[in-house]
Amino acid sequence: MVQAALRSGAAHRRCVFEVFARRLPEGRRYGVVAGTGRVLEGLEKFRFGDAELGFLSDRGVLDEQTLDYLADYRFSGTVHGYAEGEVYLPHSPILRVEASFAQACVLETFVLSVLNHDSAIASAASRMVMAADGRPCVEMGSRRTNEGSAVAAARAAAVAGFSATSNLEAGRRFGIPTLGTAAHAFTLLHDSEEEAFAAQVEAFGPGTTLLVDTYDVETAVRSAVKIAGPKLGAVRLDSGDLVEQAHSVRALLDSLGNRETRIIVSSDLDEHAIARLAAAPVDSYGVGTRLVTGSGAPTASMVYKLVERDDDAGNPVAVAKASTGKTSHGGAKQVLRSIDDHGRAEAEVIASVGSPEEVGYMGRALQVPLVIDGVVQPGFTGAEGVQRAQQRHQESVAELPADAHRLSAGEPVIPTVFL
Amino acid sequence: MVQAALRSGAAHRRCVFEVFARRLPEGRRYGVVAGTGRVLEGLEKFRFGDAELGFLSDRGVLDEQTLDYLADYRFSGTVHGYAEGEVYLPHSPILRVEASFAQACVLETFVLSVLNHDSAIASAASRMVMAADGRPCVEMGSRRTNEGSAVAAARAAAVAGFSATSNLEAGRRFGIPTLGTAAHAFTLLHDSEEEAFAAQVEAFGPGTTLLVDTYDVETAVRSAVKIAGPKLGAVRLDSGDLVEQAHSVRALLDSLGNRETRIIVSSDLDEHAIARLAAAPVDSYGVGTRLVTGSGAPTASMVYKLVERDDDAGNPVAVAKASTGKTSHGGAKQVLRSIDDHGRAEAEVIASVGSPEEVGYMGRALQVPLVIDGVVQPGFTGAEGVQRAQQRHQESVAELPADAHRLSAGEPVIPTVFL
Repeated sequence: MVQAALRSGAAHRRCVFEVFARRLPEGRRYGVVAGTGRVLEGLEKFRFGDAELGFLSDRGVLDEQTLDYLADYRFSGTVHGYAEGEVYLPHSPILRVEASFAQACVLETFVLSVLNHDSAIASAASRMVMAADGRPCVEMGSRRTNEGSAVAAARAAAVAGFSATSNLEAGRRFGIPTLGTAAHAFTLLHDSEEEAFAAQVEAFGPGTTLLVDTYDVETAVRSAVKIAGPKLGAVRLDSGDLVEQAHSVRALLDSLGNRETRIIVSSDLDEHAIARLAAAPVDSYGVGTRLVTGSGAPTASMVYKLVERDDDAGNPVAVAKASTGKTSHGGAKQVLRSIDDHGRAEAEVIASVGSPEEVGYMGRALQVPLVIDGVVQPGFTGAEGVQRAQQRHQESVAELPADAHRLSAGEPVIPTVFL
Repeated sequence: MVQAALRSGAAHRRCVFEVFARRLPEGRRYGVVAGTGRVLEGLEKFRFGDAELGFLSDRGVLDEQTLDYLADYRFSGTVHGYAEGEVYLPHSPILRVEASFAQACVLETFVLSVLNHDSAIASAASRMVMAADGRPCVEMGSRRTNEGSAVAAARAAAVAGFSATSNLEAGRRFGIPTLGTAAHAFTLLHDSEEEAFAAQVEAFGPGTTLLVDTYDVETAVRSAVKIAGPKLGAVRLDSGDLVEQAHSVRALLDSLGNRETRIIVSSDLDEHAIARLAAAPVDSYGVGTRLVTGSGAPTASMVYKLVERDDDAGNPVAVAKASTGKTSHGGAKQVLRSIDDHGRAEAEVIASVGSPEEVGYMGRALQVPLVIDGVVQPGFTGAEGVQRAQQRHQESVAELPADAHRLSAGEPVIPTVFL
């Protein structure tokens, strides 16, 4: 597209692209914007290196003019968007990219890849955190998703309120708290479960978490208490009927005097399984597969659409395709989350950029400047970005109507209104 | 685990870990091993750098002894496994890692991440290729999955028989054929559809693929033929009722004399949608979201389990946990795909390594040496690895009973037998 547009001259037309999802995943009440910080980190480094250009040239994919254009590529446009962690609804324009066609066009795949993946994970994670109702959730799914996705998934889960991750690389890159427990292999490696527990306590002290379901749970809990003593930090259950086991292990720990020893459960948890454990004496949840695969919705299905571009005279023209079932709304947009007198969100109000602000709705403007003339604005990237996104997410969810807390399938929790 | 095992001395015990899936995704007849080449490429580079070690040290995650161990980490063990592209069934031991506990343990997350992701994509892709019944399938899903997953997904799709990908990085790294078409934005960028088509034909010649559903399909097809002439390569349909549109567009193209112009369809295709298009005059399929998300099964749910380890005297001991619903089979295993007199696969036969070969079954041994004493064996990595995997996959699928071709939900196509 860039090559053809460089030839036709249209490559330098000022364009506005918007990122949005036409719908939420089946039955979901709201979505969560995540990945914005990663998009901005990637944008600052977005370059075509010698290896890439050499390949494109050797394979004859692109002509010289286009290769030269890409060799000098530096994004110099402006991006507005939802702050990371914000709740989104169908058609919410969560990102608005203003740049020449060529500059904005080459970003499409990267921008969508990041936002589609990270928002899918955060949207699932938010429901799990809600179901956990204050008990900590720990991300433990790295092994069930692509190795790069694993780091991004840990980050997205943190944005949506997960307390920690077992992914150390996510800790290193994004400052997310990390923790881990032993696997069954560690117990099986030793000649007996007692030896394994003793080795772990020797290495990490009694505050460690011992995995107690490799052989017989009751025997393991008794051994764990005998070896680690009253200060045993936690035991982990990873199989079987977790509700029943949590009750019996709690009773056993209490009877042995280990009232402070916590119980961590894992094993194919999702938001529904977590909700079913609400009345069980569980202290925290380790969540893996269902988190990193978006709990049934592994992509947010966001699209990156041209909504406005200049004509030859430099005047903006709203554009939209007419394809069956995939219509979009032309023109650059602004958004207000309308808030009622009780502080509750009541609608996602979308209007043209530049339309009068007095439209009969009161609320919060959702789009903030993320990049101005190629310069990434401070506060959105790195560990600071993740912390701010966590905060934003908490506030944004707190503002939603009570129906947002329902895990059952339903309609978006507030309507999207086009003015 | 490594730190505690270094303290207890068990870290250096020789261990055997096996990778397998307890079950196929709901209703699937078979799975496809993919990612083996990427595992081997990663294994050769598996190091802990200063940045990683510094983080682990600064955060107090590990002690000095463990940091020193990781700083010197080089895998020196031996790995056998299914050749990439091979079909697998429940409990197929697709990888067997023999090394010290510490060496094998730290590989778990990386190995599973790669195999779980890539095998999930290849398993879905294989069904799509089967449904397409000879018509080429093109991978176009990069934007709907994490940016790293996108490259891996393109590779996995190629292993399972996809003809090309729109992901240029996958072309560069793995030698996969690449192709692309224009998006709706390219048409909308120009003052008219004709201008857009003319720009594309000017840049790429008449053999290009023009997207004809931005406004009105019939008008667009007529413009495309007028501008590109009788040598127009293809038109792409990306919305609406594809069966109906393919028929009417084919008739229109033929009536205009463009009998050689091909029709490419995309728009939320999966194996079922492809099967429904079997009787429509379609020449190739562009598959995106449903491919890169595994068509409902985004992870292969493989696990990495310790099955054997030495005791203090250096004698191998088979080990297995007894956790409810998650039992595994102890001891290192070998596998035979039993083949009947007609050349058809009839069972996945799993036996202990070292058990007599004369077991009453005839067939193919499925495990090949991938790494010997730390040295990656030739032929499995890079572009060569992908090509060989494609070939292996074709042969392996051809050998399956006819039920393998059914897209409806069912049992694994051949049983898994433990001797």
